[in-house]
Formats: sequence, structure tokens, C-alpha cells
Amino acid sequence: MARKPRLQGLGILILFVSLSPAMIVAQQPALNLIPIPASVQAGSGSLRVDSSFTVALAGHSEPRLDRAAERFLRQLALQTALPFSPKPGKNSKATLMIQTEHAGKEIQEIGEDESYVLEVSATGATLTAPTPLGTMHGLQTFLQLVNVSPDGFAAPAVTIQDKPRFPWRGLMIDSARHFIPLEVIKRNLDGMEAVKMNVFHWHLSENQGFRVESRKFPKLHELGSDGLYYTQDEIRGVIAYARDRGIRVVPEFDMPGHSTAWFVGHPELASGKGPYQIERRWGIFDAAMDPTNEKVYKLLDDLIGEMAKIFPDHFFHIGGDEVNGKEWDANPKIQAYMKAHEIKNNDALQAYFSGRIQKLVVKHGKIVVGWDEVLVPGVPKDIVIQSWRGQAALAQAAKQGFRGILSNGYYLDLGWPAARHYAIDPVSGAAASLAPEEKLRILGGESCMWAEYVNPENVDSRIWPRNAAIAERFWSPQEVRDPAAMYARLDFISARLEWLGLTHKTYYRKMLRRIAGPSSPGEFAALHTLSDLVEPVKDYTREQTAPAEPTSATPMNRVVDAVPLESDAGRHFGELVDLYMASSCRDVALGGRLRAQLVHWRDNDAQLQPLAQRSLLVKEVAARSQDLSALGAAGLAALDAIAKGQPAPDSWKSQQLAVIEQAKKPKAQLLLIPAPSVENLVEAAAAGGACFAAKP
Amino acid sequence: MARKPRLQGLGILILFVSLSPAMIVAQQPALNLIPIPASVQAGSGSLRVDSSFTVALAGHSEPRLDRAAERFLRQLALQTALPFSPKPGKNSKATLMIQTEHAGKEIQEIGEDESYVLEVSATGATLTAPTPLGTMHGLQTFLQLVNVSPDGFAAPAVTIQDKPRFPWRGLMIDSARHFIPLEVIKRNLDGMEAVKMNVFHWHLSENQGFRVESRKFPKLHELGSDGLYYTQDEIRGVIAYARDRGIRVVPEFDMPGHSTAWFVGHPELASGKGPYQIERRWGIFDAAMDPTNEKVYKLLDDLIGEMAKIFPDHFFHIGGDEVNGKEWDANPKIQAYMKAHEIKNNDALQAYFSGRIQKLVVKHGKIVVGWDEVLVPGVPKDIVIQSWRGQAALAQAAKQGFRGILSNGYYLDLGWPAARHYAIDPVSGAAASLAPEEKLRILGGESCMWAEYVNPENVDSRIWPRNAAIAERFWSPQEVRDPAAMYARLDFISARLEWLGLTHKTYYRKMLRRIAGPSSPGEFAALHTLSDLVEPVKDYTREQTAPAEPTSATPMNRVVDAVPLESDAGRHFGELVDLYMASSCRDVALGGRLRAQLVHWRDNDAQLQPLAQRSLLVKEVAARSQDLSALGAAGLAALDAIAKGQPAPDSWKSQQLAVIEQAKKPKAQLLLIPAPSVENLVEAAAAGGACFAAKP
Repeated sequence: MARKPRLQGLGILILFVSLSPAMIVAQQPALNLIPIPASVQAGSGSLRVDSSFTVALAGHSEPRLDRAAERFLRQLALQTALPFSPKPGKNSKATLMIQTEHAGKEIQEIGEDESYVLEVSATGATLTAPTPLGTMHGLQTFLQLVNVSPDGFAAPAVTIQDKPRFPWRGLMIDSARHFIPLEVIKRNLDGMEAVKMNVFHWHLSENQGFRVESRKFPKLHELGSDGLYYTQDEIRGVIAYARDRGIRVVPEFDMPGHSTAWFVGHPELASGKGPYQIERRWGIFDAAMDPTNEKVYKLLDDLIGEMAKIFPDHFFHIGGDEVNGKEWDANPKIQAYMKAHEIKNNDALQAYFSGRIQKLVVKHGKIVVGWDEVLVPGVPKDIVIQSWRGQAALAQAAKQGFRGILSNGYYLDLGWPAARHYAIDPVSGAAASLAPEEKLRILGGESCMWAEYVNPENVDSRIWPRNAAIAERFWSPQEVRDPAAMYARLDFISARLEWLGLTHKTYYRKMLRRIAGPSSPGEFAALHTLSDLVEPVKDYTREQTAPAEPTSATPMNRVVDAVPLESDAGRHFGELVDLYMASSCRDVALGGRLRAQLVHWRDNDAQLQPLAQRSLLVKEVAARSQDLSALGAAGLAALDAIAKGQPAPDSWKSQQLAVIEQAKKPKAQLLLIPAPSVENLVEAAAAGGACFAAKP
Repeated sequence: MARKPRLQGLGILILFVSLSPAMIVAQQPALNLIPIPASVQAGSGSLRVDSSFTVALAGHSEPRLDRAAERFLRQLALQTALPFSPKPGKNSKATLMIQTEHAGKEIQEIGEDESYVLEVSATGATLTAPTPLGTMHGLQTFLQLVNVSPDGFAAPAVTIQDKPRFPWRGLMIDSARHFIPLEVIKRNLDGMEAVKMNVFHWHLSENQGFRVESRKFPKLHELGSDGLYYTQDEIRGVIAYARDRGIRVVPEFDMPGHSTAWFVGHPELASGKGPYQIERRWGIFDAAMDPTNEKVYKLLDDLIGEMAKIFPDHFFHIGGDEVNGKEWDANPKIQAYMKAHEIKNNDALQAYFSGRIQKLVVKHGKIVVGWDEVLVPGVPKDIVIQSWRGQAALAQAAKQGFRGILSNGYYLDLGWPAARHYAIDPVSGAAASLAPEEKLRILGGESCMWAEYVNPENVDSRIWPRNAAIAERFWSPQEVRDPAAMYARLDFISARLEWLGLTHKTYYRKMLRRIAGPSSPGEFAALHTLSDLVEPVKDYTREQTAPAEPTSATPMNRVVDAVPLESDAGRHFGELVDLYMASSCRDVALGGRLRAQLVHWRDNDAQLQPLAQRSLLVKEVAARSQDLSALGAAGLAALDAIAKGQPAPDSWKSQQLAVIEQAKKPKAQLLLIPAPSVENLVEAAAAGGACFAAKP
């Protein structure tokens, strides 16, 4: 599916995962690996990595493995700045010996063996894997092991036996609502490889754009894309690039709804009268294909045939979500057809359509994937259900014998913290009570990057680093689930992903510079401080709170477009408050650190306001800046009150809580993240100085 | 020329330009333009730049102008994140009307008209220029005018009449000592366009590498480059890319010295016995071509002919610098030839060689450019002298009738602050007293990026933003020379250059991450704080202070490789101290800001030391970190003493000065930049509390 802004999603509550300080300390991992391997045994000593480091390949040989080893050496060089020999050898004395047993499938298959064993000792390392897929995963693990040490770069001695928990570990990128250029797709494939994801689900058609060159029906992309589409050669390039990284590419052509852009060039497919224009707004629209028109199936037969040749994967995604049925209701011909063929309602009509399309996909040698809606009575059992509805729907499908993947809970665009995604397991909730063979039908999951509010500049930051936490959920053993330990590793992998060319960190200062315009260092620092502590509003509230109806032409140059979806500084402040409270507010050093931050916030607004007078884009957050100052002052007052060791008066408390209430309101579509933690300090002060311990 | 580490340069003193606070305020420019135009008249109001903004071209038409307008629209979109129509039109109602009068030269010539007039009013803008060169410069000026304003993006109403002071405004990049990949070259050409530089001098051969594909003599690049060379097609691509940006490309093949890499494949050219290997060390070496061997001229005739066809520019650089003559002295055949032909000494032998080469260059239709050494008696007057020796040598050449360009004072690798480069004028010093017609022979200058200590990761930061200050020196009227105003504009242009893809800001955090390895936010922040306040040692001291002899294989992953060559934070601290002292140390707010920084420095080391225990690369700067702490403590003690209003005791003063003396010493090849400013505070405290005013 796609988006349920108007139908669903508003009721979702944000559950902040509370991180107890005990967990932070106890489960801190020794190795900064994401995803955590299935089994890790520490050895003693470490393997030095210097410019004499070499790699050799043995066993099964294919060009893809050579390229993987060369890529590994390039990445290791980026990571260390050491000059390595650029080519792997066959030398049996190489530092890292790689043994691949046999070839993988010509077209990468779900459930292929992806396991590997990596043994690192002080004198060398060996990586063995049954297939190139395991080899590639093992190389990424090795890269994550290498760090600067007291003696230089080194990898700790360790034995890792690893394999994935789920065979389908995907990232979906919507290239249709906003076009995402090729180089952005490719660097995100690099990121996927780094965290061992193996399915790139490419959402290629939407109301807002048809993004693939069709040689059979060129009006689809010529009139349906504003010239922003991928040529067939470019797509083949992406597929080869992905295969080189152990990643399958599953294309999605969403139908019968989400298809306005098709109708610009081919109005005859639609259920309404037309003419149609490329949709510029967001939401769910009426336009839908006409399931009663044989011309529709003729064109789709040819088009699916054309696309099936370009995309080698065994799976083909037909979308199928969110048809509101209005065009069907309004079309007398369709109504007459339904009556004549005893199709009782729109659900049945869509089921009829899905059945027909499913046969076309099978005819062209592929297996259907579709969103929940495609699961209707009579549909063949080999289709794969991608569930945006949730674990219950997925479990229900599995019980009925369908394979499925979970995406509910993994929508990156909703702005959830990594810990919240991380807490969601494809086989939990309703799925936990499935029989073992039913559980096996749950193939894994996919994170989804819907593209209403992303463009090439900020899209990486909307995917990373949070997507690495989801990748770990899909790969690592189910027991791996401590959020504090995950965050420690996430911070680290986030820095590494930058070496692959991802821009999820570097874009931010550039966007803030644009927002600030000419500014003194102090003014810019004040904007940075504020921006570091806010997050965009969550879930589907962004449309509703927008100053004007957003469209695909709305500039993405505001603070809400620039800030990361999860505030590191806000999280760290919350952790600090938790630690301080756990010390019964007696830890002087922690108190001092809190005070320094709060003073900084209190005084920040005075630095920012002159800039707000000069820049419209800063002016938008001027009230947020005042709220941050007020939060700083409230926090300082709470620390002062705590220091007195006596309960602060009720009048004081309600005064402070009123300030915090203001700070908690969204403004400029931004949430001020430290507000709840400051509230905790105020509550503690009111309760009498000796803070209650943080909740477990 | 190249480098004089052993022969010269050690005597150069670093002159810190003192910035008086009065200058900072008085000359702050209203517009953030670099380079400052020849004439600016402010209008009233401003031109709104929103998504309805359009561009139209009129007058002379050529594809290069269309591409320039499209590039302008792309850059404007990057700068504003507004969605513009991607193509210029012919509409007479466009927001920006561009009128180009006539074509430029087919091969861009020195002295072509580069002027333009840009008029911006509240209702529209017009840009008129005689040639496409002026048009392109005017477009860059317009881009710099656009900023976020209280009402959104806008350009202030203004009339600009602009033209360059010098016709030769170059940047030399040494791609030979370290290979610089194509995309790095291209993004630096984008940077050059932004600051109106018009000559890319490409240093393509050295002891350490021959970087151009030669089809006639393939052993040159095959054996002389470690496989790191530019193909002829790639070079043609760079030349076209540069021409599109109004930039000439002047190739340099350095001979008869600096040529070891040639001899790996062609030892018969050398004066020594060989065999030769690609040089891995830095410095001046003995290897030199044999001026007495006719085979040398035969090969060079063919090679220059081949290269002259690839590089269309009228000028061809033959290097000619730094031949130590040892191979000539040691070769009896050469000695015999000299005797037979009455060649008195090595200078005369080099003059003979230069004369022969000069004739070959002329034969292939080009004009010779060479470093100072090529200027010997009898050399024809049309050669151009590039002076690494200085203004006196340049003036002397001009007196003799030679044209010249200045590079002495513009060596980016020496690590000078922008203000020091900025203070150097091609027509000052000895050149100031030249007759007008002699002055005209000084065509301009070139900044030089020698590549001993740069690689693709940090090279942008070694060139930018300082190169923009040099570009202003070459373009703007001679009277434009206030360093404080320059710095204010430089900070701003620096942010803009990032939108062009330059990485001079973004590389830094990535390199620090590698140095830190796994680290807590506090530890990483401590490393960042320290790194922001240090600069690499200056001039030619880097070789001498290196922990081991540096070579082209030395990893560039240390703090000295990561930090910018000019510390913004250090400069800002110095400005703050100057302001505080100018207030007779009575400004409480300034004192508070100083105190906050000094406390931060004092406490920084405690955060950094645990990281130094874990990372070898941090450990290297652990002593520097202690020095920074000590500086912080000394500065705080000075502020305390100043607050007492009485002269601090002599014993106290000498104690503090001893600390500062330590901090002033280079360690880990790094200078701690705030040391002199803290010293000023200590002196002020010792002098009795009421500080002396900062020197004018």
C-alpha cells in the first residue's frame, strides 16, 4: 500500500521506548556490528590492518566475486585512508582468505543460502560461504570489525557464524511521488548492502508519475512523468548494480488505483471521463483503471510482458491498494457490467481485476506481490502479501496459506524513532501464535520510504540511519532487541554509511545554511542548536498542519524539511535526565551537564532572533526558539528547586507545566523533543527534591 | 615552479594580519559578493525570486549560452530549493533578460572582453555583456545576490558594471604528485567559475607521475603513472567542461627536471644511467632530461605535437624549474658536448634546452609559459613567465619586455591564512614602480595547489575557501583590500561552494570520525573542539617535522591531514579577544563570551583523553589537547586578574607565559592557533587590568 492519511493512521500513538540506564550499561555490545550476527565468539588479540593487507579469492570463481573483493578493498581504503593493493589475488598467504563454495542462482532467489563464517585471528582472517551472497555479507561484517585501535587500524579476533533470520529483507523507495535520481538509488543500494538488506522494492508508478520508459507505450512515460523517468538501460544498470550487492529488485506498478499518471497518455484505461493531468497533490484520488474494459487487459498484458523482460526477479508487484471506487460508482457502463456479471460491489470488482492481472503476471513467468487488498477469496496461494495493515492481517494471510512480508510499522516517512521500528517484529503480536509452518510463510519485511516530503537532498536522511535498525530486526536473532545497545551501534554505523557516499549527515548543514542566509557564526550556531532539538510532526499530521496545501511543487527548504526525523541531541538529553533522576538527582556531575545544556538553550533565542528578522525561513521557527528558551529556563528552575531539597510550591509547578505545555504543541510543523524530559525534572522538583528513580 | 623546500622558503615569516575592530564594522559590505565588482550602485527594493522566476536569452546565440543558462537555473534551484522551469526561454517578459552581443573567440583568448552589466530592480533584471564570457560572469554575480530575505528569496535592486582587473586569473592543480580524479577536477572548475577565475593550469607530469595518455609514446603513461592517468577523451571532456565555464586549460609538462616518471618507460631521455622507478618521495631530485641528446628533441617534438592537438589553448607550459644539474655533471658525454659547443655551465645548458623546446612549442602553434628559470638571455619576448620567485623577479621580466603572472604568495599548500594571500598584489612591491606599459605586461596571477599532502578527500579543503580570496585579488579593483570585510564574505561564499559539490566542509567530520573510531558524543565533540583550533604547520616545515619520511604512499588519515589549513574558530577567538581588549577589557558581555570558551577548552581534555587511549590517531594529539586545556586555564586566570583591576605579579606572568610558550610549539605537526591571543590577555592582566586598546 501506500498512504492512509484520511482513512487510517491518525489513531496511532507514539510510544516512546524508555531506556533504562541499567540497560544502557549492561547490554552495550563489544562490537559495533549492525546487524548483529547469529553467533559471535570473541577470540584474543586482534588482526592489524595496514597497507600490507591483502585479499585472496578461492573456490568458486565469478566476476561478481572479483568485483565484490575490489569494492571491499575500496571501502576499506575509504574507512582507513590506507593505500591497499586495489585487486584481490589468488595468493594463499593473503591476510583475508575468501572461500566461496559454489555459484548462486542465476536469478537471485528467495531463500538462497546467505550464510557465512568469518574467523579473525591475530595472524589472519578467513571467510567461507556456500554462495557469493554469504561472501558479500561476510565482507561487510569484516568492514564493520575494522576500527582504529591503540596501535593503528585492526579487527578484533573473533569467530562469527552468521545467517539471516528472514529471507526477505527489503527497502521500498517511492520514486514516483518525487523522482529520485539514479545516483541516489545507487548510493542507497550501497547502504542496503552494508546492513545486509536483500530486496530493493522500487515503487515506479503513481498518481504523480509513471517513471519507467516503455517502448511499447511511450505515452506512459512521455506524458506521465514531466520528463523524469528511468530509461530501460538505466534500470538494467540499477539491477546489475543491485545484483552485485546481493540485492533483488522487485518493481511495483500500482494498479488499478494510484494510477492517474498513466491516464495522461492513455485516458482510455480510466474509469472516468478525463482528460487527466499528472496529479500534483497528495492523498487518495478517484482515478482508477476500468476493470470492465478489455483494452485495459490488452495493454497491461503487453506492458507487463515488456517489464517482465527488463526486471529478471521472480516477483512482480502490482500494488492494488486504496481504490476508493468513486469513478466506478459514477460510470454507468461499469455499473451495467457489474450487474450483468453479478459483481456485487467494488471489492468484488477489484478482486475480479486482481484475478485477471494475476493471470497476466503468471503468463509472463512471475509471481504476484501485492498490498493487503489483493488478498480476496479465490486468489491463488502463491501470491505474496505485503501488509501495510499490520501483523494481524499478515497472520491471517499466513493461516490461509499465503506468504507475506510486513511493512506496517516500518514506514520511514512517519518519522518514528528508530527504537519504535526496532520494537516491531514480523512474527510477534497476532503472528506469535501461528503454527511453525505458518510462521515460515512470513518471509520478512520491508521498510518503506514514501516520497511526499523527500527529494534528492534530504531523502538519505529520511532512510538512514533508522533503516539500519530495521535491517537488524530482519536479520538478527529475535532475542536481539535492546534499544539502547542498538542506538550505540546505530550512531556508529551512521558515520560509516557516509563513506559510502550517503548524504544523510552532510545534507543537513547545507540546508541550514540556505535557511539562515548570510549570518554570523553565533546566529548560525543558534539556528543549529534549535534545529538539533526539533523533529517534524509525526505520522500523517504533516498534511493537516501545513501552512498551505502541499503539492509536488512545494519547495522543500523549510526547517521541517531540513532536520533529521529523529533528534540525536534530544535523545541524548533524555538519556541524561533519566540517568540524573536514577541517581535520585544527587549526581553533581550529571546535574552540572544538564545545567550547562539548559543555560545554553535559555540563552539561545537571543542569538537567533536577529536572524529571524532577516530570513523568512528562520522566522518560521522563531516561536519554537522562544519555546526552547522557556524550556531551558523551566529546567534550570527545576534544578534550583531540586537543589533546595524541599517540594516546590504547587503554584510554581503549574506555572512551569504551562510553559512545558506550550513547548509540547507542534509549531511550524515541528515538535520540541526535550519537552517531556524537562517535564520530568519539574515533576521531580515538585515532588520534593529527592527524585524518583527512572521507570524501568 | 614547484617546491623549494631545501633551497628556499624556510626564511618566510608568517605575518598575521591584524584586524582592527573598527575595520570590521566600517567596511562590512552590504552585498556578499566575491569577487567584489568594479562598480556597484545600490537601488531601492528587491527582486523577489520565487518559482515563477524565468530566464530568457537574446542577442547572440550559441549552445554554450543555453547550457550556461540551464546551469544557472540548476544552481539557483540548489541554492533556494525552489522548482524552476529547467530551460531558459526567448520570452521578452522573463524575470532575468540576458543579452549577449556577439560570439567570443573560438579558442578563448587572453584579454577577451569579460565585462558585463547587471541591473536588478524590484520588477526584473537585465544582464548585458559583449561576449558569452561576460554573460557567464554576470550570472554568477546574480546567483550571489540571491538570498533568503524577510519575505522569501530575493535579490537586492542594484546596478553592477563589472570587468576584471587582470586577464589571467588562474588556479594550478598538481595532479601528478597525487592523482586527482576527474570529478574532483570538475567540481573545482565549478568553484573557479563561481569566483570568476579563467585559467586552469593543469600540472600533469612530475617525478611522481606522468598523468596523460600518450598514444604516440604509451610507455610514458603506462609505466609512469601506476595506472592513474587521464585518457585523451577524459581530457577533452575537462577542456569542454572548462570552456563552458569561461575557463582556459593550460597544460604543463615539466622538463627537463621533475621528470623521473618519464624515464621509467623512456630511460633513453635521461641524463643518468637508469633504470628509473616512479619517485615516491618528495623534494628535488637529480633526474633530468639530456639536453645534448637529439632523441630527446625528436620525442618531445612528437609528444608536444600530440598534446598541442588535444589542448586547444594558445599557451603551453613547459615547466623548466628546479634542475639541480647533478646528472649533467656526472655524465661525461654531456660534459664533452658542453665543452665542444662552448656551453659554459648548467644554466647555459638549460637555456639551450629551453630554447630548443621553445622552438618546438612554436612549431606546434603555441606560446610558451614557463617558471622563472626559463627566462634566460636570448629567449624570445613572447614567452610568459610564471613567477614563483616573487614580485621583484616578475617586475624585472616586465621591464625586459616579457609578460608574466605571479604565483609567489599564492601557494595554497603553504597553509597561509586567506588574509595573507589577499594582501599580496601582482602589481605591488617592486612592480609598483613599473611604467604603465610595463605594468600591463603583468597579466595576473595563479594560485597553486601542490599535491604532496592532498588527496581526493581533503584537496577541496586545501583550495577552498581561501582560493576565493585570491580570485578577488585578481578580479577586483586594487583598492578592495580590507581583510575583515573579505573574511565576512568568504565565510558566506564558502557555504555556497558546497552546493556546487565541493567537499571542503563536509570532508572534515568524516575524517574526524575515522580518527575517533567508536566514540561517545562527548568524546567526539572533544576531538572536534580541539581540531577546530589547530592548523597544520606552515610553509615547508611539514617534511622536516614528519614522524617518518613522507612518501606518496603515506596514509593521509591523521589530524594534520583532516583539519582545515585555516582555523575559523581560532580566527573568531582572536577577533573576540581584540574586541575585548579594544573595550579596555571592560565589556562584560565580551568577557563572558571569552570566559565560556576558555572554560570549554580547559575542560575539553578530560573528555578527550579516554578516546586517546583507544585510538592511535587521537593519541597523537593528546599532548596538543593538554596544551589547549592549559591555554584555557591561563586565559581564565588572565580574565580573573583583569577583573581585579591591578597588575598581576611578575611571577604569575612568567608562569603563564611558560604555558603559552609550550602551546606555541608545533606538536603532531599542528599549531595551536589561539595561543597568541591568550598571550595578549596575559600581557593585559600583567599590565594592570585596564587593557591597552588593540593596535590599529
